[in-house]
Formats: sequence, structure tokens, C-alpha cells
Amino acid sequence: MKKLINSVDTVLADSLNGFCRAHGDILVAGEELKFVRRKDLKAGKVALVSGGGSGHEPLHGGLVGHGMLDAACPGQVFTSPTPDQMLAAVEAVDTGAGVLFIVKNYEGDVMNFEMAAEMASGEVARVLTNDDVAVEDSLYTTGRRGVAGTLVVEKIVGAAAEEGRDLAALKALGDKVNARTRSMGVALTSCTVPAAGKPMFEIGEDEMEMGVGIHGEPGRRRVKLASADDIAAEMIGAILKDLGETARGEALLFVNGFGATPAMELYLMYDAAAKKAEAAGLSIARSLVGSYVTSLDMAGCSLTVTVLDDEMKALWDAPVHTAALRWGM
Amino acid sequence: MKKLINSVDTVLADSLNGFCRAHGDILVAGEELKFVRRKDLKAGKVALVSGGGSGHEPLHGGLVGHGMLDAACPGQVFTSPTPDQMLAAVEAVDTGAGVLFIVKNYEGDVMNFEMAAEMASGEVARVLTNDDVAVEDSLYTTGRRGVAGTLVVEKIVGAAAEEGRDLAALKALGDKVNARTRSMGVALTSCTVPAAGKPMFEIGEDEMEMGVGIHGEPGRRRVKLASADDIAAEMIGAILKDLGETARGEALLFVNGFGATPAMELYLMYDAAAKKAEAAGLSIARSLVGSYVTSLDMAGCSLTVTVLDDEMKALWDAPVHTAALRWGM
Repeated sequence: MKKLINSVDTVLADSLNGFCRAHGDILVAGEELKFVRRKDLKAGKVALVSGGGSGHEPLHGGLVGHGMLDAACPGQVFTSPTPDQMLAAVEAVDTGAGVLFIVKNYEGDVMNFEMAAEMASGEVARVLTNDDVAVEDSLYTTGRRGVAGTLVVEKIVGAAAEEGRDLAALKALGDKVNARTRSMGVALTSCTVPAAGKPMFEIGEDEMEMGVGIHGEPGRRRVKLASADDIAAEMIGAILKDLGETARGEALLFVNGFGATPAMELYLMYDAAAKKAEAAGLSIARSLVGSYVTSLDMAGCSLTVTVLDDEMKALWDAPVHTAALRWGM
Repeated sequence: MKKLINSVDTVLADSLNGFCRAHGDILVAGEELKFVRRKDLKAGKVALVSGGGSGHEPLHGGLVGHGMLDAACPGQVFTSPTPDQMLAAVEAVDTGAGVLFIVKNYEGDVMNFEMAAEMASGEVARVLTNDDVAVEDSLYTTGRRGVAGTLVVEKIVGAAAEEGRDLAALKALGDKVNARTRSMGVALTSCTVPAAGKPMFEIGEDEMEMGVGIHGEPGRRRVKLASADDIAAEMIGAILKDLGETARGEALLFVNGFGATPAMELYLMYDAAAKKAEAAGLSIARSLVGSYVTSLDMAGCSLTVTVLDDEMKALWDAPVHTAALRWGM
């Protein structure tokens, strides 16, 4: 295992310390690094809280700040954060207007956020993301996995929260964005969890895992490495088929690197995916290309399509200032 | 070789097409993809033009836009762009106030930008970056290599150009920023040039290349993989020793991933490097962490320190809108 670390026991703390130090203008670390929160809270605003296992950086901590999340709870690598962490985050950021949890659909996350919601004294609602069309029921999931589309939910709902919408409206909006969002991924290599010290799965020198999950969970099939055009065709095809009648008009196309994929390849995949989506009648009105929802050092990428309406487009464009996503300020 | 590509012959064109498509709001591709230029040119402003071999994305195309470069010329992978490309870029973006070339110190780049400057009809000046303290005289370089510090030069000079400063002032500023900037890198793996199909160099499972160049050029020594703290200590030590008396007061610390290094490790390295720099008496006033000056799919990172003054700090903070760097707008 080749990683820039001090020891497997301190990876998470060392990394979080660096993260909070580098972004001290907008972020504050919670006690015992239980969470990362927005430095300047906004009274009367519904607080958005997310979290999950670490190893997907910049998700979720890198999406904390003006116009997105108020707090994020980092679990150990690929391990759910504890209800105790979530409760501490809620107590730190709830200014009285209630809290919206944005939860990726993994059993541990779902259970722990549920327990935290029960323990919280204020009002709590939840949006569950499950945008991965690759498979139903996976290693850590009943139903579909929540993957890169979660960023889109966090951006659009975050902008609406900043505008002052109430908890019920934000919950409805988050469910709507999730319903209009689909993703699928492909891995060229495995990832290596520091504490394990070896790759999550074996994969041949000429193979790819089509439909891989963001923890290296199995996808649809293990096949020979194909061309970027063919990979994009399969993934966009699966996404659009699943969106069905919803797939019309304007869309956001988000090409997400898994951690070890160079920008050159991501933009190449963007070109291939945009052509397929446009050939199917979609108009690509917004784009995002980069490594935002990663799987440690896995090589590969995911494609996400969100079908936009005018409201969603305006909220996507609204100012945001986080470590990973920033515009308009 | 595992890459998301269609064919080795079309990697660059496919990727550039995707890049220009994804950022069509701010960028325009030049004829035959000779260059990428800012969509909205500003009359009377000195034009900043850079470029170099591809494979270092988002450098330089991702740094074209308001407050940074006016055009960037992408060569083939790890190959200098041609004088013809540079001349086409100059003709496209020179609005009459002259052109400043920002050139990384590699023999091919230096020679070709020189030829282009001779052929250009308008006034042209040049800033040469050579921030890499690792080695003198390398595979493609006489003197020191220009590496990640080039981004800092482009940001600060870009902001000053946007303010309307003249060519001589910008040239002087660029030289000053370069003189106050030092970098050093470490590689854990090699990179693979698509056309070659195999790694640039061999490296053992427990080894790192200390002082590596951004094309996989040899560094100072091949040693056993060390802890992040020890790696940061050696690199920051070399940088500060080289800065000498200049290394006092406020600094920018830039941790740059080489393409296959996850954000988690970059922030961990940031933490280690910031502690070393602060222990040596520097105050880290600005930070940048991410993969900006890459070497295709190489794992590893570089550290860059720029010693700031008030002018440089204000120019660093000035609004910028490019594909890779954006704030204040």
C-alpha cells in the first residue's frame, strides 16, 4: 500500500486537521472532530447536515459552507459516522428552524441518522439519496445506493435553505431533486482502505467493473476495458432508460472522478457522455467535471444526470462557498 | 495501460473538446485546437499567454479566464506546443497592449515561445518560471524546472493584468513572484503516457522518488517510502533553505496532487507541511490544496511556498473565474 500518511490509525484525524486548517476562513471542526461545521451560522435558517464514511472527499466536508451544508459528520473510512456525532452536529448548527439530514442510502448511515433524529430535541426531516441505477440491493444497501447525485441534492437544497425556505419545503425539494437524478459508475482499479492495506477487490489488467459502487461494491458485470465512447454509451443509456419519461429538456451532466482519475480523462468522458445525452434529446444546460465523490484511490468515474427545471437551475446557479464548490462569491 | 480513452491518437483532441464544451460559458477553442482562449477579451488589457505539454491538466487551459490567462496552448502529452500554436494564440488575444508569455523552464517550451515572440508583430515579454528546488539541470531542462509555482505566477500576474497594468510592470511582477516561490515534489508511482502505453519509470512497491519532476524526471534520490511528516519535513526544509532570508512573514502554502492522489492524502500532507512551515517561523496566510499541476496519473504531490507581501496577497485574493480556480465571482 502506497499512501501519503503517517499511520493507518491517524489518517482520518490528520487529514481532517489539515482540511480544517486549510479552510479555517469558512469551517470549524467540532469537538473531537465529530463533525465539521460552517463557521458563520445563519439564524432562522434550516440547518443541513450530512455525513457518511470517509474516503469520499471532498464529499461531505468539502461541501460545508454558504449555500450548501451546515455540518458534515465524517465516519472512519467507509464506515458510518455514529449517532453521537450526528447529534453533536445537530446541536451545534440548529438555530431553531429545524434540521434536514441528507443521507446516502447505506444501511449504517440510514440507521444511525434515524437514531440521531430520534434523540434530537428539535425538528428533523430527512432526504434519502439513491441515485445509482447500476444495481438493486448491494453489499451495504437495501434498494439503490446513494452516490454522486448526492452532491446535486446538497447544492440545490442548500441554495434553497440559504433563501430561507422551511423544513417541509426543503424536504420536498430534496426528494424532487433525487427523483430527477441518476448516476452510474465504472472502475478501472480497486481502492485500498488504509486499515486493510490491500485492494478491496482484484481486477485484471484489461478489465473494468461496470456499475461499481463508491466503496468498491460489485456492479453489473466485470468486462474487458472498452473505449470511452462505449463506456459512456452504456452508462448514459442505463441512466436515461431509468429516468424514462422524465428525461427531456434541460439537464445537468456531472462527470465525477473516483480519486485517481486525471482531469484529462474526465473531460474526455464528459465529451463522450454529452454527445450521447444530446443525441438522446437532452440539452446539457449545466456541467460539473471533477473528483467530488471519490472512493479513495480508485481509478474510474461516474456519470450523473439531473433533469433540471427553472427552479432547480436557478438554485444550482446560486452563490456557493465551500472548500470544493465555489462560485458567485 | 488502463485509461478512459478512445484511442491514443485522439486523447488530446477528445479531452480538449470535452473541456471546451464543459466550459463554453468562459472559453473558446482556437482553430484546430491550437489554443484555448478566454471568451470575452478585454480591450486595452495586456494578454497573458501560457502553454506547454499536455498531461498537466488543469494547467494551463483550466487557468484561462477572467483574472488569469487569456490563452493557453496545449502541446501533445509531455511535448511542447509549436511556435505556430503560440503565434495563433497571440493573434487571437492581443488587443494592442502587448502579450506576456508565462513559460515553464523546459528547453522545448523556452525555444518555441522564443520563436513565437520573434514572429509576433506586437510587443511580447516573457516570465520564465523555475520554482523546483529539487535539482539543477534535468532531463528536459537547463537550470531549474518550472512546476506548480507557475500557477501562483499566473494567478497573481493575471489579477494585475486585469487591473490594467502595463507589460513592463507585469513582467517585473511575474519575475518577483517567481523569485519568491519554491516547490518540490515526491512521486509514489510513475505516470503512463498514452502513446507509450507503459510507465515512464519503474519504482518499487516500497519506494518513492524524492524531488520528482512533473514528467516523471528523476529527483534527488530514490528512497524507501517515509511517513507524511518526514516527507513534508524534507520538502519544506529544502524549500525554506533555498528561499533563505526571503522566508519570513506571510506565505502561501500550495499542496498540489499529481493526478492520482486522493484529497484525503493531500489534506494530510497540508497539515504536515503547514506545521513544518510554521515551526520555521512562516505564517501561512493563504492556502491552496488540490490537483492543479498534474503528471497524468502519477501518485504523489508537490509542495509550493510563495512568500507574500501585501500587494501579492491582494492580487491572490482578487476575483478569478477559470475552469479550475474560481472565487469572488
